[in-house]
Order: sequence, then C-alpha cells, then structure tokens
Amino acid sequence: MREAFHDELDSIFIDLAGIARKVQHAVARATEALMTGDVHIAEEVISGDEAIDLAREAVEEKSFELLSLQQPVAGDLRTVVAALRMVAELERMGDLSVHVAKIARLRVPSVAVPAQAEPTIRRMATVAEMMTAKTAEIIENRDVEAAADLAQDDDEMDRLRRNSLRELLSADWTHGVEPAVDLALLGRYYERIADHAVSVARRVVFVVTGETTIDA
Amino acid sequence: MREAFHDELDSIFIDLAGIARKVQHAVARATEALMTGDVHIAEEVISGDEAIDLAREAVEEKSFELLSLQQPVAGDLRTVVAALRMVAELERMGDLSVHVAKIARLRVPSVAVPAQAEPTIRRMATVAEMMTAKTAEIIENRDVEAAADLAQDDDEMDRLRRNSLRELLSADWTHGVEPAVDLALLGRYYERIADHAVSVARRVVFVVTGETTIDA
Repeated sequence: MREAFHDELDSIFIDLAGIARKVQHAVARATEALMTGDVHIAEEVISGDEAIDLAREAVEEKSFELLSLQQPVAGDLRTVVAALRMVAELERMGDLSVHVAKIARLRVPSVAVPAQAEPTIRRMATVAEMMTAKTAEIIENRDVEAAADLAQDDDEMDRLRRNSLRELLSADWTHGVEPAVDLALLGRYYERIADHAVSVARRVVFVVTGETTIDA
Repeated sequence: MREAFHDELDSIFIDLAGIARKVQHAVARATEALMTGDVHIAEEVISGDEAIDLAREAVEEKSFELLSLQQPVAGDLRTVVAALRMVAELERMGDLSVHVAKIARLRVPSVAVPAQAEPTIRRMATVAEMMTAKTAEIIENRDVEAAADLAQDDDEMDRLRRNSLRELLSADWTHGVEPAVDLALLGRYYERIADHAVSVARRVVFVVTGETTIDA
C-alpha cells in the first residue's frame, strides 16, 4: 500500500515536471513572438495552452484518486495537496505566457517592444524562462539547494521590473503611451511567472524537508 | 463522525466568508486611498493584509486537520480541497488590493487617477467590491443562483477594462505616460480580483451541485 502510494506520487511529480517543461516552452515562444512580431508563433502559444490545461486536469484527477484510495495522513497528505497547488500555479504560468503572446499579436505586424526597451524586456524574459526551467529540474530532482537559487533570480526580476518602469516613466521616453502600457503589463506578466516559479519551488522544499518559513 | 465532519466543514465555510468580507473591505479602502490620495488609508490596507494572511493559514490548518482526522472521500474530500483553493484565491484578492493601495501611495500627495479616467476606474472598483461582497454571500448561503450573476458582473468588468485601455491609448489622452501606466495596472488588478471572485463562486457551485462546466 505504502509502496503503491509512493509510486503514484512519483508519477504525479513526473507529470508536474512535464507541465513545467511545457510552460518553459510557452514562455520562450511567447517571447519570440513578442520580439519578432510573428503572429503564427503567438497563435501557437495561445492555442497550445489547452494542452497545459488538460495536463493540469489529469494531475488533479490522479491526486484526488490518490487521496481517496490511499487516504494519506500527515506529510503524505500535505505532499499530495502541495502537488495540487503546484499544478494550479504551473497552469497559471501558462496563462501568463498566453498574455505575453496576446500583446505580441495585438501589435502585429509591428513589434510591441521599442529597441530602447528591448534589453530589459529580453532579460526579464530570459530570467522568467530560466526560472521555469529550474523549477522543472527542482521538481524532477527534489533539489532543495537549487530552490534557494530561485530567490536570487527573483530579486533580479524585481530589479528589472523597477528599471523597466523607471525607463518608461523617465523624461527620455519618446515612444509615447502605447508601448509604455504594453511594457508595464509585460513586466507584470514576467514578474508573476517568476513569483509562481518561486512558489512552486518552495512547495518542493516543503515536500522534501517538511519545513516552510514563508507562504509555501 | 459524519456530523462532526460537517460541523467542522461549516466552520471552515464561515471562516471563508469572513475572509471574503475582509477582502471586500480591503478593496473598498484601497479604492478610497486611490481616489483621495490619502496615504493613511493606503498604509492601513497594506498593513491590514497580514490579518488576511493569518486567517488563510488558520483555514489551511483546519482543513488539513479535517483531512487527516476524518479521512473524507468522494464529494467530502473534494469539498475540503475546494476550501483550500478558495482560501488561496481569497488571499490573492487581498494581495491585489494591496497592489492598488501601493499605486495610491506612490502618487501621494497627488492622485493617480486623472479626472477623465475616474468614472471608468470608479466603476471597475465598484464592480470588484460588489463581486467580492456577492462572493461572501455565496459562500455564506451556498447560493448557486447568485453565483450565476457573477459571470455577468465579470463581463461588465471585461468591458470596462477594454474601455479603460481604449481611453488611455486614444489620441485624446493628454495626461502622458505615468497615469496611463498606473491605469493599465490598476485595470489589471481589479480585473484579477473579479476573476478570482468568479472562480471562488464556481467552487461553491461545485461543492453544492458536484457539477463543474469550467475550471472550478
């Protein structure tokens, strides 16, 4: 019984890592659509979100089955509930990639990001994608050490977001309101992807160590 | 045993409704801070968020205890897990109110919202607060009918958000980049509060009827 439980749980964590990989791909492709103004890539991210939603539902069903059939208590119970929360956050990261792709699509055949703002937004996108990749690895390897790194990446993201806002609110900004609004929202989306990555990683730490200092 | 389970569950739902009321208050006060530029009200919302976080933790603990001690299956299990999800969304609605209050605080002693944009933002705030109030009632009364109304309110919110973006991107916009960026983000925060209200209400419908058409 216990062994069946842990096999099932492992299978759920493999699914979670797989969803994180799908999200990483969505973040990367949404950013590509954004930087190139390629409507096909944007559409691919938008329609591809359904696969993430379906994968989420599958994990939810597996988790409920596990709870119902195995009736775990204590740490095992908390691990299954943590998995349910992780899958909800991963799905949300997918939604946020769709939001990025939709801003890209809105500006086709132009590009939403003016050249002046490109380095900051590109770095935010890279950090968001990297954090999503790390999250997949952390889930795969139950890697508590790597989870600690994510907090530093998130600090960089917060700095980038502040820089981006400062840039578009400065007197030197010559691109007008529309790109500024796009960038403010894009910054928010990438920042939220990063927040969710940190949160998912914290849940893995909690699952492995049973310890949580903050909202895990 | 079954009776004890349902008493505990009722107590969790009473707690959830109480948190929804706290969030409703936070939305209303954050909006007041925004419209008046009153830094004390903004600070009150920001520091008041801790009470919502603590109330969330208490509901989580109660829910885990209930799962551990009573080992519910089928519908009862799904109801407890739904409660865990609802409390996470309610807490997030509180965080979004804090984001509104922080924009208000950032612009003190000015007011972030130009007179031209006030009617739309005020209506968004009213709809968000009303939806939060309805969510509290829906949780209190397990009111499936009322939950259907929320979808209509959410449609209004989406229209308001589109109008707001159209307004600040139009040629008539004379207030420059900063208020436009503030309004784009404020619109996003109110819209997300509304989304979460709809989602919490759907979970109540699911708990009562066992049916879910969409992501509940």
